[in-house]
Amino acid sequence: MSIPRDFCAATTPQLRVELAEHQLALLAAREGVIRAFVCLDAEAARRRIGGRIAGPLGGALVGVKDMIATAAFPTLYGSDDPHDAGPRVDAWCVREVLRRGGTILGKTVCTRFAFPVPGPTTNPHDARRTPGGSSSGSAAAVGAGFVSFALGTQTAGSTIRPASYCGVTGYKPSHGLLQTDGVQAISTTLDHLGIFARSPRDAWYFTSTLVMPQAEIVASRRPRRLLVLRLPDEIPQDDCYAEHLVALTASLSQEDVTMETTDLPFPIADFRHLQQDLCYWEAARILLAPGRMRLVPQLQALLTPYLDKGVAVYAAARRRRQQYQMHFAALATGYDAILLSAATGAAPPFVETGDAVMNRFWTALHVPAITVPLWRTLAGLPLGVQLLGALGEDRSLAGMAQWLFERATS
Amino acid sequence: MSIPRDFCAATTPQLRVELAEHQLALLAAREGVIRAFVCLDAEAARRRIGGRIAGPLGGALVGVKDMIATAAFPTLYGSDDPHDAGPRVDAWCVREVLRRGGTILGKTVCTRFAFPVPGPTTNPHDARRTPGGSSSGSAAAVGAGFVSFALGTQTAGSTIRPASYCGVTGYKPSHGLLQTDGVQAISTTLDHLGIFARSPRDAWYFTSTLVMPQAEIVASRRPRRLLVLRLPDEIPQDDCYAEHLVALTASLSQEDVTMETTDLPFPIADFRHLQQDLCYWEAARILLAPGRMRLVPQLQALLTPYLDKGVAVYAAARRRRQQYQMHFAALATGYDAILLSAATGAAPPFVETGDAVMNRFWTALHVPAITVPLWRTLAGLPLGVQLLGALGEDRSLAGMAQWLFERATS
Repeated sequence: MSIPRDFCAATTPQLRVELAEHQLALLAAREGVIRAFVCLDAEAARRRIGGRIAGPLGGALVGVKDMIATAAFPTLYGSDDPHDAGPRVDAWCVREVLRRGGTILGKTVCTRFAFPVPGPTTNPHDARRTPGGSSSGSAAAVGAGFVSFALGTQTAGSTIRPASYCGVTGYKPSHGLLQTDGVQAISTTLDHLGIFARSPRDAWYFTSTLVMPQAEIVASRRPRRLLVLRLPDEIPQDDCYAEHLVALTASLSQEDVTMETTDLPFPIADFRHLQQDLCYWEAARILLAPGRMRLVPQLQALLTPYLDKGVAVYAAARRRRQQYQMHFAALATGYDAILLSAATGAAPPFVETGDAVMNRFWTALHVPAITVPLWRTLAGLPLGVQLLGALGEDRSLAGMAQWLFERATS
Repeated sequence: MSIPRDFCAATTPQLRVELAEHQLALLAAREGVIRAFVCLDAEAARRRIGGRIAGPLGGALVGVKDMIATAAFPTLYGSDDPHDAGPRVDAWCVREVLRRGGTILGKTVCTRFAFPVPGPTTNPHDARRTPGGSSSGSAAAVGAGFVSFALGTQTAGSTIRPASYCGVTGYKPSHGLLQTDGVQAISTTLDHLGIFARSPRDAWYFTSTLVMPQAEIVASRRPRRLLVLRLPDEIPQDDCYAEHLVALTASLSQEDVTMETTDLPFPIADFRHLQQDLCYWEAARILLAPGRMRLVPQLQALLTPYLDKGVAVYAAARRRRQQYQMHFAALATGYDAILLSAATGAAPPFVETGDAVMNRFWTALHVPAITVPLWRTLAGLPLGVQLLGALGEDRSLAGMAQWLFERATS
């Protein structure tokens, strides 16, 4: 008997139970090193899955980032201060997962208030390296095979980048597709839910159970026309990434996919900083309320100057965003998807959580993004490619991501 | 001794206490007919205000729409079923009001789940008429003089329209300026907080305490150039509104304000329906979760078909919105503000809550809007003008609204 490679492959209740048992065995063996969870209840999960398997997520083990409120577990936002604990209620996404039959295994580690201060979680491919952040535990839990799905968030690059580091699929839906009710707010117009899964089709299957009347297994879809974004030299990037992208472009061209390459068509300053200007202005007004959450000093120092920036500064950044959204929509019209690296390289050493520069700008633009784990470095560390699509084209993007995924792994 | 006409005029703790006592006396006299509150605690408010008056909102009585969670009062979202009760925690805006010294008098009536099904609240200018909705109690509580400020929400026209019906200032900030954490979600990309106040400067003062390091009393600002929008005949509108707008245009021209008039520069079908297409698609995914909130049957029937509409339909509406946002930004560039009616007429009879067609499209565009109570019908019912500004130009819009307000009332 072989273990299903993703949740969609577990086509019977029996297979779902076997998959979950396999995952719980991996958890027992490796969680001591990985440390993906802040808290969990494997026995309760086993009991629930040992009962009747029902609903599209029946039998699925799910990890939930510690930024997302749950009734069954406390929520601490990566803090170690019990005063910071959130309400014991289920966030919208958690409620929906439970309603579709899913099983919440526990709360996954996030960096403190989702800012880049590492937590204890290690990368499942190399314990001396970061899983990325801020959805550190969610990426690592799926990467280590402990769960089929994990809920994360992305305000800059907290889903797409850690998915790349941990060799899994990461999916940031179009802004507005999944609501963030019950998720600790960081940034009013940038916070998104993110999904970690074993495959792109699993990521869309999970998402479709939340927003569609019926769960969908999206068909693998061969793209006809892809645009590869070439970034300027100021953006740090490991050489091997560029080599893999060139090789992918060449091999896809030979398979009759029209491949075009363009230099980044947005001003580099805003590509680097627009998201931060929006995020810090918004976050200062949310997180600096005294007596609420005890921030780390460097985070306090980062945000405080933004309290003194007036609404006009913020409004100007909002309007630049609108222009870029239109520009992106025009660019995306001619292609099935836009391709670039999901991160600047493989997972860096454990003391940091990596650079979100490949992700921030697209998050600010609200467009859907998906990490497809395609490559490995010579040292065996995962590298993912990032696919971007027009706002709302999530389903078709997932189909193409699945095609690239199957092509690389079959 | 005269009662301060707005909160900004209550320049000493003594005046603030006198204003609050006056408001509580009005409440005692008229709440039996107005029915603005679902629940309230006048004694607790009196005790808090009788203590030390401190902070920018010290001494201010505030009403909170029943869509917004509070720790001190239950939250029922306009439902009469205790199963629908929300968590007993303070929403972000409530926490901030308390932290700035404000006093929550109670929860104000909203229509059931903020959809247009009337609650018990009557219009303070005529008890046979609606205060509007869905922020019915918030508009009426300020209109009746019970509180200085009330928090509401706007997903279509639930702040701007009831403010017009009740003869008060209603302000819907730029999307993203105030976060909706702790507010029951209806529509992921459309939900806004709304503010009701006695004057535009009060509305901005209140808002600035939430998002600026210091509270601001915005200076009255004379506009140089205004654009009046003329709506097509398909949009229902009372004659007296058009007459008032023509007279206002003529008189402002004589005061050296450059006045221009244009026909609505957006397709009428989307002006009418774009916001609904977005709202119903998003709301179906939020509100139709079974076992959660018991919706009225007509609301269920309205939303259910949207569950079967795919992501592509939704995405197309999102992209049209982006185009209109750019178009609006270009239009607004040449003017200090854009003017139109805040509603289709004065408050209609009690059995309905009025038409949001003047508001929905602008809500979908995320731009700031403010109702200035300027006129009366022959029967003495209030009519407000609506000012729109470019995204993020909230402060300057409030200054111009204050100028129009003072000009009309001085």
